[in-house]
Amino acid sequence: MTETMNRQVLLASRPVGEPTSDNFRLAETPIPEPGPGEFLARTIYLSIDPYMRGRMSDAKSYAEPVALDGVMTGGTVSEVVASNHPEFAAGDIVFGYLGWQSHAVSDGTGVTKVDPTVAPISTALGVMGMPGLTAYVGLLDIGQPKEGETVVVAAASGAVGSMVGQIAKLKGCRVVGIAGAAEKCAFVRDELCFDACLSHRSDNLPAELAAACPDGIDVYYENVGGKVFDAVLPLMNVGGRIPVCGLVANYNLTELPIDPDRIPPLMRSILVNRLKIQGFIIFDHAHRRAAFEAEMGRWLKDGTVKYREDSVQGLEKAPEALISVLAGRNFGKMVVQVGDDPTEG
Amino acid sequence: MTETMNRQVLLASRPVGEPTSDNFRLAETPIPEPGPGEFLARTIYLSIDPYMRGRMSDAKSYAEPVALDGVMTGGTVSEVVASNHPEFAAGDIVFGYLGWQSHAVSDGTGVTKVDPTVAPISTALGVMGMPGLTAYVGLLDIGQPKEGETVVVAAASGAVGSMVGQIAKLKGCRVVGIAGAAEKCAFVRDELCFDACLSHRSDNLPAELAAACPDGIDVYYENVGGKVFDAVLPLMNVGGRIPVCGLVANYNLTELPIDPDRIPPLMRSILVNRLKIQGFIIFDHAHRRAAFEAEMGRWLKDGTVKYREDSVQGLEKAPEALISVLAGRNFGKMVVQVGDDPTEG
Repeated sequence: MTETMNRQVLLASRPVGEPTSDNFRLAETPIPEPGPGEFLARTIYLSIDPYMRGRMSDAKSYAEPVALDGVMTGGTVSEVVASNHPEFAAGDIVFGYLGWQSHAVSDGTGVTKVDPTVAPISTALGVMGMPGLTAYVGLLDIGQPKEGETVVVAAASGAVGSMVGQIAKLKGCRVVGIAGAAEKCAFVRDELCFDACLSHRSDNLPAELAAACPDGIDVYYENVGGKVFDAVLPLMNVGGRIPVCGLVANYNLTELPIDPDRIPPLMRSILVNRLKIQGFIIFDHAHRRAAFEAEMGRWLKDGTVKYREDSVQGLEKAPEALISVLAGRNFGKMVVQVGDDPTEG
Repeated sequence: MTETMNRQVLLASRPVGEPTSDNFRLAETPIPEPGPGEFLARTIYLSIDPYMRGRMSDAKSYAEPVALDGVMTGGTVSEVVASNHPEFAAGDIVFGYLGWQSHAVSDGTGVTKVDPTVAPISTALGVMGMPGLTAYVGLLDIGQPKEGETVVVAAASGAVGSMVGQIAKLKGCRVVGIAGAAEKCAFVRDELCFDACLSHRSDNLPAELAAACPDGIDVYYENVGGKVFDAVLPLMNVGGRIPVCGLVANYNLTELPIDPDRIPPLMRSILVNRLKIQGFIIFDHAHRRAAFEAEMGRWLKDGTVKYREDSVQGLEKAPEALISVLAGRNFGKMVVQVGDDPTEG
């Protein structure tokens, strides 16, 4: 608490393809003072998520890019350390988008309090936060799985995929996950209790997926893109639904592969099988947060839903953590611990 | 009425690419006798529709292909000439899928009576029939246009596109059509009163479409595929909807163009703009028929909605008519007059 400098990670340059550590720069500035109606918070946990790759580019997207030399954007769990804001007091644990830095001043916009009695406070970045809500809304509202249907989800050990599959199991579906490493597949099968989990590294994914989905696929929760999508498409049943929340396999693409253009067969499949493919951004579904928090809080407390975190220590590790997430090397929800967690131990 | 032979058009061979007249064969068989619970009908009008291309192939689709040497399937308006069926009497005008032939025996399955007082009976194949319902359901139920939004539809002078645009105008939308020949574009603008109509033959379609849609595109009713889709996609607004009812530009494709694979940018656009792309087949929406018939009947009677037919005389012209439709050479709903229309003049 005697720190005087705010440590930050800035966007030094825009990546071409995979980001490297050269795209980031560490900086220090004096810790700011909160003005009237503001508070100062110190970061405890910083969330690392695939969408951050998009913010590093200046291509048109659903959100403004991070400016060059600007602080990287990111969700945070923080402790209020000084406050001139009537609704926040020193000692409060809060969730917000306070960025890749050790301290931040906020006027409270987009900041919510975290109840440390529901679950460990880091879960406000994962299962109880944006990834959990993304899984919940995309699967239930757009995917609309029915009992007995088959649901496929990739990145199945990740923050979103692990929740999609577990919620689909609760709804009575057959659930097939796709992950990379063998230990992730084992976790998905044995701990999360999916019906099957395949590796996207297999040379034989299309045939293995067909065998794991003997009744075809009714819902494919699309959060990776690339060759998993290619293996899924021929197996989609009539009336199938494909919620699209992310395309991490494509985020680092710099040019399109020269291949047969597959839009015609994709569109034909959409037509013949009456598929619905629908993109969504979680910020459009804030009205579902209360229902989500109540239900997910219950599932967590009674142990119905399990989650896994992959955490690294120290803000300076954040760039490497994002590079890992984009390459699929994390195992569980990636969180950077930036400061002490006062609720621990 | 003294005919003794049933004239038929059979599928002689499956086309590779564009169908040719060699894929069809004329045949004659004795006019069949209706058995108990059956009736004999003579064909007055035969509908020619793009979906028929799909039935000529044996690729997996939403309906069984026509068998080799089988009678081509098709919607018909017919007159009952002899009946052992309690619900159909000689002289009744009926709609059914009685195929490319001058006579057919039916047990009444899928056959409905046509009321000749609502509109000319040939409209049971067009504006009051399957194409009209396809326009109505796809636009209203899947596209869900709101007042002030921009709706784009291709094949705008055709049976489906002309209805999509007119219904969208009734809902208060800005409507931009895309057609081929200049006379079709003029008809769409001047007779159907679309706000604009562009030619897909223009070298400059993307820029012209952008200029015609200054507020972007909210609903693209996809019934052609190909380069119109390519021009539309970059203009889709956040939350845009793309009902997919046909892909006539692709139906004759024999191989995929070797081009950059555009699935990654398509999926990115779906994600970033939260698009919904949904295929549909009109046979899944039969429950909407009553509402459609009531509303469309009213619009036709009071002149709110206009339609255009392109008719040819004689069953033997049906193959050529289908080849024309697939090439976009028809102008309005294509109908083959196979026999005398007793309700005319």
